[in-house]
Amino acid sequence: MNSSRLAHLRDSVAHVLADATRVTTGDSERELHSADVSFHRPRLPDLVVYPTSTGEVSAVLEIATAERVPVTAFGAGSSLEGNAIPIAGGISLDLTRMDRIVSLSPDDLTAVVQPGVTRTALSRAAGDHGLFFPVDPGADATLGGMAATNAAGTTTVRYGKMRANVLALEAVLADGTVVRTGSRAPKTSAGYDLTGLLVGSEGTLAVITELTLRLHGIPEHIAAARIAFPSLEAACRTAAASVAAGTTLMRLELVDAHTIRAVNAYEESDYPEAPSLFVEAGGAEAAVESDLELVLSIAREEGALDAVHERDADARARLWKARHDVAYATSAASPGRRHRSTDVCVPVSQLAEAVAVTRAEIERSGLVAGVIAHAGDGNVHVGLMIDPEDARELEAAERLADALVADALARGGTSTGEHGVGLGKISALEREHGDLLPLLRGIKELFDPHGILNPGKVLR
Amino acid sequence: MNSSRLAHLRDSVAHVLADATRVTTGDSERELHSADVSFHRPRLPDLVVYPTSTGEVSAVLEIATAERVPVTAFGAGSSLEGNAIPIAGGISLDLTRMDRIVSLSPDDLTAVVQPGVTRTALSRAAGDHGLFFPVDPGADATLGGMAATNAAGTTTVRYGKMRANVLALEAVLADGTVVRTGSRAPKTSAGYDLTGLLVGSEGTLAVITELTLRLHGIPEHIAAARIAFPSLEAACRTAAASVAAGTTLMRLELVDAHTIRAVNAYEESDYPEAPSLFVEAGGAEAAVESDLELVLSIAREEGALDAVHERDADARARLWKARHDVAYATSAASPGRRHRSTDVCVPVSQLAEAVAVTRAEIERSGLVAGVIAHAGDGNVHVGLMIDPEDARELEAAERLADALVADALARGGTSTGEHGVGLGKISALEREHGDLLPLLRGIKELFDPHGILNPGKVLR
Repeated sequence: MNSSRLAHLRDSVAHVLADATRVTTGDSERELHSADVSFHRPRLPDLVVYPTSTGEVSAVLEIATAERVPVTAFGAGSSLEGNAIPIAGGISLDLTRMDRIVSLSPDDLTAVVQPGVTRTALSRAAGDHGLFFPVDPGADATLGGMAATNAAGTTTVRYGKMRANVLALEAVLADGTVVRTGSRAPKTSAGYDLTGLLVGSEGTLAVITELTLRLHGIPEHIAAARIAFPSLEAACRTAAASVAAGTTLMRLELVDAHTIRAVNAYEESDYPEAPSLFVEAGGAEAAVESDLELVLSIAREEGALDAVHERDADARARLWKARHDVAYATSAASPGRRHRSTDVCVPVSQLAEAVAVTRAEIERSGLVAGVIAHAGDGNVHVGLMIDPEDARELEAAERLADALVADALARGGTSTGEHGVGLGKISALEREHGDLLPLLRGIKELFDPHGILNPGKVLR
Repeated sequence: MNSSRLAHLRDSVAHVLADATRVTTGDSERELHSADVSFHRPRLPDLVVYPTSTGEVSAVLEIATAERVPVTAFGAGSSLEGNAIPIAGGISLDLTRMDRIVSLSPDDLTAVVQPGVTRTALSRAAGDHGLFFPVDPGADATLGGMAATNAAGTTTVRYGKMRANVLALEAVLADGTVVRTGSRAPKTSAGYDLTGLLVGSEGTLAVITELTLRLHGIPEHIAAARIAFPSLEAACRTAAASVAAGTTLMRLELVDAHTIRAVNAYEESDYPEAPSLFVEAGGAEAAVESDLELVLSIAREEGALDAVHERDADARARLWKARHDVAYATSAASPGRRHRSTDVCVPVSQLAEAVAVTRAEIERSGLVAGVIAHAGDGNVHVGLMIDPEDARELEAAERLADALVADALARGGTSTGEHGVGLGKISALEREHGDLLPLLRGIKELFDPHGILNPGKVLR
């Protein structure tokens, strides 16, 4: 954007915000909004704007449509497929100052929040009422960003993804029109599901300005276990059989030996360096104990090497530390490198074979990488730490990611379980749902006829 | 349709089906496809077609697009808002002969079915593996129709509506193109959620030809209770508090005294003629007993008059008979009349007041009607039996339905919890989501540019 156009844009936006300090062209803030936590190449926005109300978001989008300026919504910047990188420049619309919990209704198990509220902030507020918000992608992402990505994480096996936990949305369309989808009732059949359509649309169809979310009761009793296995396949088979047995586990996570070694180095711990399942059960005490016992008995039949289980909160936190430290440990082991995570998801019955193929493809690639999986939902991540300046390494990572997508699709799975399409999965989406592209493009054109919302994401 | 055009259409369709017996213009079959179970005025289709494969559905839609002939998909005909009535004539596309369970994967807790499979047929097949399909709208509807309506019912409080239980769809677009949405993996973030968009689109966007559904484990222990209360409000408060307490009940149903009287007359039974909650808990035995005890203790505080609880299957079936007989009992009490059910849904904290308003509005209307509610999800039905020839009665019913919609919307609720929009809720949808109409219409035009799919439903 040339400097006179930019000055005009900045003045127009500052005028409708009536607060010039929330519109900036400063280098450091533009840089903070140029990247997410992935390996994707950063791109500076021309302008960073911090709205504090729906009206301001609407006014900014009205200007952006009139001026045909790209707008990319930005939350915690924790996306993993370049989803929040403003690759066409324009405005980075930072929603973190819209961080108010509008209302909390313990009787309805619902909360209304602005998009900049983080998941842990909501769970803290809900905790006063014995409630929590269950979707846990690891990062302390904003709820608006989590909805835009249809985020998931370690608790999806029990509580579903964001889409299952969003009842209603307020959103601003590209031209500044404010709309409301859904209702505060627990269910509705009133017209096509625009709530579900906006969830997972990655800021390409509208900007979410308010969310009505489901809360859940904190289980009265929680028990956790870490179980080490002789092979990745044995761990996967145990996970799949635990799900098929109808347990209501809250988390069911797989961490491979490579990753446990990185954690041991990072924590100076001595966890058995073997493929391990981390399991959490929650509910009435008897149900929890019977679920956990069932998993342990399946694990023993699969030759489990070692099992530790804990009930009290501190002991459980220590037990889960290894799993939670995976991202830090992996980063610490590769200073200066950028994170690239694969994200395929397969039917749980296919998990053991998919993980075996994953391990073989990593060996073949010559890259060094760990495998973790949300084993309860068949979602496998390879955590690669790559040097963005090394063309050979980048290409090997790309080949590996492609091979894993091809394998997952052949198993009836999907190219992305939870990270979304962003920049990194556009080709994979075309491969997975080529027949749907005309409809996906038609929906994009309907919502955003001038293509100003997060251009270049999800669809080419 | 004039007779030469009709003859041409019949011949074209018979040609692509290569079986003239599955294309009929006979009066009795057209009549069977002219109505659903609601009060809405029947309309004969010109032609009834029974495809047996996706290829045949595609070929029929290709002809229908070329000839601009309306096509209304038809399953069990158990819709409640005229959803399956071919109000513009044309083809009634009866999918009940596509009734094959394509595959069942106990390890993945999934099944792939054709759209004409009924929910009980699927649950029977799944039962051999200790599994069942949980969505239970009462009628033995087809799974294709249930997905098209985003059906719900008595178990939604625990298992969600159809949308929560559909992983993937095969569907045929208006022009005959076959597309596949979703995948067999438990979750996906690959592009806009077209699976969720087609679920609940009532045959206006595409014809569903295959569904991949979630199955659930049959709970190892189930207990049921019937609790009579001194007032509707006390019963509603008990239901809302039971949900807020975080119980994982499978069913939580309210039946008013008026309806219990009709059941007693029908069954020659002697259930206490008082507002009653029917409750079912399922899971590990200890969890079930603690959930049920919690509900009973809340009920006692609300002055419960009487409570019966049962554990074994036969005794539970007897206990639930009263609830399941509501539809028959209500019909039997009003021979020659047609059923009209209201369907608003409110936040559960609003249920007691919404039901009090409902009772008052019924009195004011001069109509005789019972109230039932899926109390766990705030979904209230007034079961009216009306004389379709009596203009005053029709108008009183219309006014009552309007008043209840207005009240529900004022409480943050929705005009339809589970019956869909069909013919009967088009105005209500406009009132509830007027701001969304341009988007809803745009989606309709994108999927069905010539407006041949179930015209006149959902949108004007």
